[in-house]
Amino acid sequence: MAGRRRPVVWPVLLAALVAAGSARATETERVGMSPFGPNDEIGMLNKVTPESVFKVLRRISSGRTYDLSVEFYVGMPSYYFLGQPRFQTWNVHTPQGTIVDDPNGLGKEKNSHVTYSGTAFSMYAHTGTHIDALSHFGLQGEIYNGFKADEQLGDRGWRKGGVEKFPPIIARGVLIDVARYKGVDVLPESYGITVADLQGALRQQNVALEDGDVVMVRTGRMQWFKDNEKYMHNTPGLTRESASFLADAGAIVIGVDNISTDVWPAQESRNWIPVHSAMLSQRGVPIMQNVNLEQLAADRVHQFAWFGAPLRLRGADGSPMRPVAIPIR
Amino acid sequence: MAGRRRPVVWPVLLAALVAAGSARATETERVGMSPFGPNDEIGMLNKVTPESVFKVLRRISSGRTYDLSVEFYVGMPSYYFLGQPRFQTWNVHTPQGTIVDDPNGLGKEKNSHVTYSGTAFSMYAHTGTHIDALSHFGLQGEIYNGFKADEQLGDRGWRKGGVEKFPPIIARGVLIDVARYKGVDVLPESYGITVADLQGALRQQNVALEDGDVVMVRTGRMQWFKDNEKYMHNTPGLTRESASFLADAGAIVIGVDNISTDVWPAQESRNWIPVHSAMLSQRGVPIMQNVNLEQLAADRVHQFAWFGAPLRLRGADGSPMRPVAIPIR
Amino acid sequence: MAGRRRPVVWPVLLAALVAAGSARATETERVGMSPFGPNDEIGMLNKVTPESVFKVLRRISSGRTYDLSVEFYVGMPSYYFLGQPRFQTWNVHTPQGTIVDDPNGLGKEKNSHVTYSGTAFSMYAHTGTHIDALSHFGLQGEIYNGFKADEQLGDRGWRKGGVEKFPPIIARGVLIDVARYKGVDVLPESYGITVADLQGALRQQNVALEDGDVVMVRTGRMQWFKDNEKYMHNTPGLTRESASFLADAGAIVIGVDNISTDVWPAQESRNWIPVHSAMLSQRGVPIMQNVNLEQLAADRVHQFAWFGAPLRLRGADGSPMRPVAIPIR
Amino acid sequence: MAGRRRPVVWPVLLAALVAAGSARATETERVGMSPFGPNDEIGMLNKVTPESVFKVLRRISSGRTYDLSVEFYVGMPSYYFLGQPRFQTWNVHTPQGTIVDDPNGLGKEKNSHVTYSGTAFSMYAHTGTHIDALSHFGLQGEIYNGFKADEQLGDRGWRKGGVEKFPPIIARGVLIDVARYKGVDVLPESYGITVADLQGALRQQNVALEDGDVVMVRTGRMQWFKDNEKYMHNTPGLTRESASFLADAGAIVIGVDNISTDVWPAQESRNWIPVHSAMLSQRGVPIMQNVNLEQLAADRVHQFAWFGAPLRLRGADGSPMRPVAIPIR
Repeated sequence: MAGRRRPVVWPVLLAALVAAGSARATETERVGMSPFGPNDEIGMLNKVTPESVFKVLRRISSGRTYDLSVEFYVGMPSYYFLGQPRFQTWNVHTPQGTIVDDPNGLGKEKNSHVTYSGTAFSMYAHTGTHIDALSHFGLQGEIYNGFKADEQLGDRGWRKGGVEKFPPIIARGVLIDVARYKGVDVLPESYGITVADLQGALRQQNVALEDGDVVMVRTGRMQWFKDNEKYMHNTPGLTRESASFLADAGAIVIGVDNISTDVWPAQESRNWIPVHSAMLSQRGVPIMQNVNLEQLAADRVHQFAWFGAPLRLRGADGSPMRPVAIPIR
Repeated sequence: MAGRRRPVVWPVLLAALVAAGSARATETERVGMSPFGPNDEIGMLNKVTPESVFKVLRRISSGRTYDLSVEFYVGMPSYYFLGQPRFQTWNVHTPQGTIVDDPNGLGKEKNSHVTYSGTAFSMYAHTGTHIDALSHFGLQGEIYNGFKADEQLGDRGWRKGGVEKFPPIIARGVLIDVARYKGVDVLPESYGITVADLQGALRQQNVALEDGDVVMVRTGRMQWFKDNEKYMHNTPGLTRESASFLADAGAIVIGVDNISTDVWPAQESRNWIPVHSAMLSQRGVPIMQNVNLEQLAADRVHQFAWFGAPLRLRGADGSPMRPVAIPIR
Repeated sequence: MAGRRRPVVWPVLLAALVAAGSARATETERVGMSPFGPNDEIGMLNKVTPESVFKVLRRISSGRTYDLSVEFYVGMPSYYFLGQPRFQTWNVHTPQGTIVDDPNGLGKEKNSHVTYSGTAFSMYAHTGTHIDALSHFGLQGEIYNGFKADEQLGDRGWRKGGVEKFPPIIARGVLIDVARYKGVDVLPESYGITVADLQGALRQQNVALEDGDVVMVRTGRMQWFKDNEKYMHNTPGLTRESASFLADAGAIVIGVDNISTDVWPAQESRNWIPVHSAMLSQRGVPIMQNVNLEQLAADRVHQFAWFGAPLRLRGADGSPMRPVAIPIR
Repeated sequence: MAGRRRPVVWPVLLAALVAAGSARATETERVGMSPFGPNDEIGMLNKVTPESVFKVLRRISSGRTYDLSVEFYVGMPSYYFLGQPRFQTWNVHTPQGTIVDDPNGLGKEKNSHVTYSGTAFSMYAHTGTHIDALSHFGLQGEIYNGFKADEQLGDRGWRKGGVEKFPPIIARGVLIDVARYKGVDVLPESYGITVADLQGALRQQNVALEDGDVVMVRTGRMQWFKDNEKYMHNTPGLTRESASFLADAGAIVIGVDNISTDVWPAQESRNWIPVHSAMLSQRGVPIMQNVNLEQLAADRVHQFAWFGAPLRLRGADGSPMRPVAIPIR
């Protein structure tokens, strides 16, 4: 509950921010400008081309599909500490209600014959398995490629950098199973994944990153998904350094099996969420949260064709999605 | 506007229902029982197997992706005649608001440095490009495979037949371009597509339906999507007969480029939405609305690998989704 | 429907704005500064004091209550032309759903015994009978008393000028029945009420305005409330001059029985909604819309004790409310 | 957080239900039939008449108003244990967003001149200071006066017994300050107020209940309102016996300064929420929660004119409201 969680989580964060040295002072952090030109809104997703897509599709070696999404349900873990609305679903039409209300004016007999149900739902876009658009985090009033909030952020979201600009994403996916590499079920609380961890895990898996990869990093936290508080509390995750290593290696999307991608609390003094701001606003690399990597890990499937298509929500800075992996040779 | 639309639309429907002969009397319509057993909740999607998936993936002949989804935006066409909530999106976090409200307690300097945006949205599940779960329509208090509303419909939707049970769907897709076959841009208002139309279009395209196909039927209406009233008014669509022809031919999903799948108003006396109830509750065939088939049609791409994965919304009787088509040989 | 209404309504507005002469040029319009001091957020509601309240309560001459509120229901007329969400209500708990879902874990027997229902609702704050807080409209980035959006508008609304600051309002209410004075059931479309109309109606009613009055202006439009399009289309209403006359006479709240208070389209070239911005941001006078004055008018009750208490919605720039009038001597 | 709260709260409740003796077995509990006739939907609120209203208004002795409502804000305490949506508010229009989006098509200059804000909100109807309609709880599928869910509960709420049927409520209000009588700031956790407590407090205050009173019972919990978890945990409250004593004495509304009215957990074996079901469904007495009685208690104001008018939310089983008290002689 908000009233309780915040005293637990935020003081830790504040202490970390105060305690951290000035070595990381980020006075000069600026958003990145896209190599794809001044109108670019999708960053590294420009690397998804018919050629790159065909390249991975040709390597598909089976029809086994791995569903990388969690289920969405009332009460599911989600950001709410800062007042975000939680996932809700409700019945707009039910068989009984249609008979009683007769909304279509057809009367009791016809509405008893045809049994009508209809669901509605509402959510913060950053709930469940989802992708962050480049507009989700920026620096000093700007987002990736220099679009300014003053000019481009309306009441229906961003006119630049919205998730509706993202193409369907088909690319080689690589699982980096850090939990396995570290020999644990789940990485420890607040553990910051290092570059060495990523390198070690890749070596163990005998996979090398390539330009254009969708990279999925496993902490093991997904195993706690059904225990909200445990799942959300001080999650292990990436740091600016380790995330940057992935971006340098050519990652076009970085997804993690926890709620924050960033290790929590973050380990920097000025920037409370450095992986988000660095990847989204400086590198043009969309990130994902709550990706379910358990079955891939269990089956030791470390590279695969990765399919994912965010909803085209105009102006939204993120979208739920349901990515799928299919093994490749 | 509701107050005006209903007098326009519903009287037509009511007149049709009154005028229609008794030849179609549906006193004995009953839901279908699944050949996949008494616990089945997904009907013909059981035909999606690793083998069927691999079969189509092996035929992929390019990396060109066709995005079959519309954009979701405030004011978009959607069902609201019966009181359904329309699509909404709003800003939960903005850069300016984060500075003013300081929800994370980090203060003005840090919140000015990191530029934070966050979107929320709400919608009726049957908005935009979406799939209907088998629970969306039933007959006489039951849905496909005999699950009863009295026992299985809770306040968070159906405990059986919810869309979260649907697997990611990868199958051969077939476009049936009826508008082209009929030599029109858009089929006429209230035109009921016939079996002969479907057969003729398939012949023209030189494609034969196969068991396990995802079938996309084009009326041309998508060209009017941006004109809400025109798009939604008395749409051409399938009839019980023509939809049944597709189900008989092995369709596991039937999608249409209009808002209703059913021709509107429906042409039966007792059942106001026969294609929905027949496909969902009798045949176990999920249906889709508002599928954008324009580019496939323009490029004369009539068969393709079809990828689509609804959100796993627990208990929901539908989900928005963004299907993708890739040409096959 | 938005797609249709806007072509009807907005071009008229735009034409009016273009055609209007420069005599009303409002280059120098500025928000008003409160006579109640630099921290004031409620403007003329400061005139509600224990003394003023007691003065009117002592005059109460009966226990007959007039309910001045409309009903709130799905499909009711409301602003939605600019994308505002419409009124929605839904069942969170139902007796049947509680049995099926067993959300409290008490089981079928106990949940069959206790029959549980629970409603949720959502709305634009400016729906149905409601009051506008002073923050609803301002000028050049500021609201009444000089509070700046840049400094005071967060993601949860205004930190200054929110409706939660409004006290319960008890004051003398005066009905000005302009429709009756003009001898019509409903004032004509787009009729701008003049100062002479108000003066004439007051004379006819034999009531003089006093400092501290809540003024209710009747156009007769409420009779069309159930016909959404007719009710909302080009409503008659106040103009800057006639509203200012009321403010000059001491009105602390001005309510109208239509959806806009302002005559629509407005009759000025630069300011598209002059009564709102003048009353709220320059005069500190809250305004109300959709006030049901029919029974008061039918009974020729022209002065009364007026009770109204907006919900204390933090940061909101308006609130639905249900005012009540009781005749006074 | 749901995942944590339920293990704390519900096991206690379940244990209580199991442990409670059979003396209170409620096998035969049935809803009450109204003395006001078979069509009655408002129960004891029928006692609000012009005569009763005038009687109390004549006794008003000052213009001092007591605001009995809490503020509504994101993060406020509210029911959510059973999946209810929490209070949300958001900006639909902002000055900056109106300039960027130009939703009215008037362009940057005009939209920079007029500063536009607009709030929306959503809530479970039983949030903050609110009143429960008689349909909120019933017994065995029926609500007060025998209306059956099967026949009267549609998808937009109850066609009978909805809160829109409630009149504005003006009556004598009586504060029963149990906390003061017991000599404590706040009644102990899970304390069940007894009949003797109510009688003792009334004696101490020198006030006798009369037929038609609105009764406000003070536990002192409101002092903890800003600490969500503390405020909501195992609240003291009324029992079936003490609530029935008030109903017997003529109470037409019973309000409490806590979240549940019922002592929590309830002290009966079969009925998990006996005060709710007894008052609403058997006695026809609306109940209220989260009523702020602190200032009345501090000033020792024990009787007063009580004004309250729920929003006329069609079909809703409750409504937020902002009651006001004014001292009487």
